Amino acid sequence: MFKFSDDTNYAMPAHFGGWPGRPQPATYHDVTSITVSYETDPGMLTAFIPEPFEKTESVLTIQYSMCRRVDWMGGGGYNLITVGVPVAYVRRERIEGLYVLVIWENRTAPILTGREQTGMPKIFADIEDPHQLGDRLLANASYDGWTFLRMDFRQVKQMSPAELLRLNQQAGTVNAFGWRYIPNIGRPGAALSLATLFPQDLVAGAAWLGEGRIHWEALSPEQYHTYYPITQALSQLPIKSYRDGLMTQGRVVLRNDLARQLD
Amino acid sequence: MFKFSDDTNYAMPAHFGGWPGRPQPATYHDVTSITVSYETDPGMLTAFIPEPFEKTESVLTIQYSMCRRVDWMGGGGYNLITVGVPVAYVRRERIEGLYVLVIWENRTAPILTGREQTGMPKIFADIEDPHQLGDRLLANASYDGWTFLRMDFRQVKQMSPAELLRLNQQAGTVNAFGWRYIPNIGRPGAALSLATLFPQDLVAGAAWLGEGRIHWEALSPEQYHTYYPITQALSQLPIKSYRDGLMTQGRVVLRNDLARQLD
Amino acid sequence: MFKFSDDTNYAMPAHFGGWPGRPQPATYHDVTSITVSYETDPGMLTAFIPEPFEKTESVLTIQYSMCRRVDWMGGGGYNLITVGVPVAYVRRERIEGLYVLVIWENRTAPILTGREQTGMPKIFADIEDPHQLGDRLLANASYDGWTFLRMDFRQVKQMSPAELLRLNQQAGTVNAFGWRYIPNIGRPGAALSLATLFPQDLVAGAAWLGEGRIHWEALSPEQYHTYYPITQALSQLPIKSYRDGLMTQGRVVLRNDLARQLD
Amino acid sequence: MFKFSDDTNYAMPAHFGGWPGRPQPATYHDVTSITVSYETDPGMLTAFIPEPFEKTESVLTIQYSMCRRVDWMGGGGYNLITVGVPVAYVRRERIEGLYVLVIWENRTAPILTGREQTGMPKIFADIEDPHQLGDRLLANASYDGWTFLRMDFRQVKQMSPAELLRLNQQAGTVNAFGWRYIPNIGRPGAALSLATLFPQDLVAGAAWLGEGRIHWEALSPEQYHTYYPITQALSQLPIKSYRDGLMTQGRVVLRNDLARQLD
Repeated sequence: MFKFSDDTNYAMPAHFGGWPGRPQPATYHDVTSITVSYETDPGMLTAFIPEPFEKTESVLTIQYSMCRRVDWMGGGGYNLITVGVPVAYVRRERIEGLYVLVIWENRTAPILTGREQTGMPKIFADIEDPHQLGDRLLANASYDGWTFLRMDFRQVKQMSPAELLRLNQQAGTVNAFGWRYIPNIGRPGAALSLATLFPQDLVAGAAWLGEGRIHWEALSPEQYHTYYPITQALSQLPIKSYRDGLMTQGRVVLRNDLARQLD
Repeated sequence: MFKFSDDTNYAMPAHFGGWPGRPQPATYHDVTSITVSYETDPGMLTAFIPEPFEKTESVLTIQYSMCRRVDWMGGGGYNLITVGVPVAYVRRERIEGLYVLVIWENRTAPILTGREQTGMPKIFADIEDPHQLGDRLLANASYDGWTFLRMDFRQVKQMSPAELLRLNQQAGTVNAFGWRYIPNIGRPGAALSLATLFPQDLVAGAAWLGEGRIHWEALSPEQYHTYYPITQALSQLPIKSYRDGLMTQGRVVLRNDLARQLD
Repeated sequence: MFKFSDDTNYAMPAHFGGWPGRPQPATYHDVTSITVSYETDPGMLTAFIPEPFEKTESVLTIQYSMCRRVDWMGGGGYNLITVGVPVAYVRRERIEGLYVLVIWENRTAPILTGREQTGMPKIFADIEDPHQLGDRLLANASYDGWTFLRMDFRQVKQMSPAELLRLNQQAGTVNAFGWRYIPNIGRPGAALSLATLFPQDLVAGAAWLGEGRIHWEALSPEQYHTYYPITQALSQLPIKSYRDGLMTQGRVVLRNDLARQLD
Repeated sequence: MFKFSDDTNYAMPAHFGGWPGRPQPATYHDVTSITVSYETDPGMLTAFIPEPFEKTESVLTIQYSMCRRVDWMGGGGYNLITVGVPVAYVRRERIEGLYVLVIWENRTAPILTGREQTGMPKIFADIEDPHQLGDRLLANASYDGWTFLRMDFRQVKQMSPAELLRLNQQAGTVNAFGWRYIPNIGRPGAALSLATLFPQDLVAGAAWLGEGRIHWEALSPEQYHTYYPITQALSQLPIKSYRDGLMTQGRVVLRNDLARQLD
């Protein structure tokens, strides 16, 4: 018979075996990211943030990342789009970071580990590699052929070595906050429901300041079953003013070793 | 602020809202399935089965299903391959059914609901629609371009209306057993670890007896990170003798209303 | 050395060998089609029609087809969307048929044979299987995640056996007209430029009258390089009034044996 | 009515309009290539080469290329695998180059232009981005989930600036030879059949010497309709000894302006 061991890490299906030891940092050797942020309505944004998080700015941040040379994926990769809000966690300790509203990814394996191991709200979308023509980049996200997000970016100025150093020192670690929710079976309510922390380190080798623009398309139930409310909610948030955009190329380390449940 | 309600069903991301009421049956109006089974080594098979399940036959069942007109997916669909073993659950009650070793699916959304809501061990693979040339059908599963499963089937005899009626009466409900395992964050061991039951009803509108053949290819870590041990384990199980194969077309109802945790 | 034979049919790459004999009919055993047509501006439509074709109606026909059990593809299949105009070929003989403006397909192999062997103007798009929820069907076409076509259809009334018989008798053969154009190398102008005829037979096993709606989205050069003018041209044609829609399920035979160059 | 102009370049569908002027060079700003070559049986290789080409070495060259920032594709890209043989064209002039046996690409648009405009024998395959783990790279090609090519590469030594300069000077231009073959309609034989030249320039910004290994899998008709003979022919060529492998990153310019028909 198959027996579970308490010293072992498993993921479903567990009965083919797990792996020993504590979770290790996961290195992504080749990551290109484009970040576009804008101010939006404070009240509408707060409605998505659970206690004990407190919004620190009324800003929505959309980050596109193309990840390659991912060690735990045998050197393969995937594309993702993270949508978050700057917050502080304020119960018993204060931690500044980004409350993640949703992450779209175009591969299932990191969606599963992110949801089940660290409570990151990852769901699937088709996400092309970004297209680059001169200093213009264009990215999108779609589901079953229905576009719901367009991101335009223009590189304005490449960072100098000194600026890059400062970027890596100031913005090198991001505290991503999630909420791991596992439902009861066959009835409403939660079997697990807790805030989580999942830090990530970035070492950029090149970076560009730039201007970005976002366009959301609200999809309907017949276009994006289950998840259409997300596109509707995000498309209703007004875009009041854009912040400076940023594009980086470099290495990212997911700190599974520092991930933890908050309470 | 966002507040969770105990009367509501959520899935991550929860903060865009959930849905009320008890889980409902999910109808798949158009499902084509091909089932191939073979006897294999009893001891090797038992090594994958956790207590309190007891193997009732030393048989591995591989079922390919092409699902379309799935109501909860807005009428869309997906393909899947279920690998299971006939067992009985024997603690406090006796329930006959199929212990599911692994389910490969080519869409992420049903993978997420299956894993998180009912403990079905679903992972991603590329699964083409089956090819049919005369009475021969061919299906496969692959990951990132690496084939790991080939299924051949030949229709030998279409069932008569009387045989079809008997099939629907005898094999109409399948008790699928899973094991919902959600890990601790940042350390080994389980936050949740429990056996689950997820019944499914089939009403076949047409069926064929036939002969099926299976070929497993063992993938290596660089081909199928994380999940290669599954292909290695299944390819090592000897194929002693094939049972009769079966192909059906019809309607399937997933009984989310009857899904429950076993203990 | 490799030598070409005049009695052999080749396709690039030719040097791995060709196949003997005259072209044969190609049977598609399982085809689901949805056809939506509308009246549009006569002058704008005529601008796309070359001599010696004459428009017989100011109608644009959009037909979605999901093809499976295609013999020449080893029993596999593909999805396509054909956009055409009712015309007559009027040089030396009169042949009624459909002048094909564009065909989008989601597989490359039939695109190549269609273009090179019969002058069908096929290009690539992502085309999902249609979604069906009750009597509503929804289909789309997109490129690199950018939606450019939406087709809605509602089944109003299934045809009786007598109506089906009449349909098969009246609409069973479609004369598709194309224009095979192969350019000079390294300079403007044509190496080959000729009208073509490619008949197709349909035997419907079931059919529904219904109501269809079409929405075109005009894509820009950065979204759909090379082919964006097609989406712009079609989206500019006014939709004056819809004709009755039609959905069929059945068998289609491409009459490669009757395909010929017109002149 | 639509009228063709002799001063215009068209591709099917032509009636939406063409573009003026002579063909222009096409720049691919970001190309990663891995080249593996091996000596094979001279006689078996010659059987694929038509006159007036003469094999200059009994070598098969397999080159994987990941192309991004392709100007004519709006800054998008695609992956391809080119299989060729070193030859000289020897009628009326002598041109050294590579006779292309087959090119697999994972996008349809460049397949169409390559075949129709320059006679490059391009067909479709699924081709993942290469996976890189440390100094090891792994790539493959498959069709409908059936793997037919595996390429392993190990970086042994990065080239010095002096070596890179020499590489760009010596290997910077490749004369690719094709054979444009367009069949008659409805009967055997050719409407067009002529040798073609399509030069390409490479400017590498980084390069690695390395060791590569190739594994071909012969597919059957039910796995790879139409094109399975190519996988069978290539898998039968013996691998006598490998040449040094090469990996480059840089810019490629397709010289459409120098492409021409040979005769």
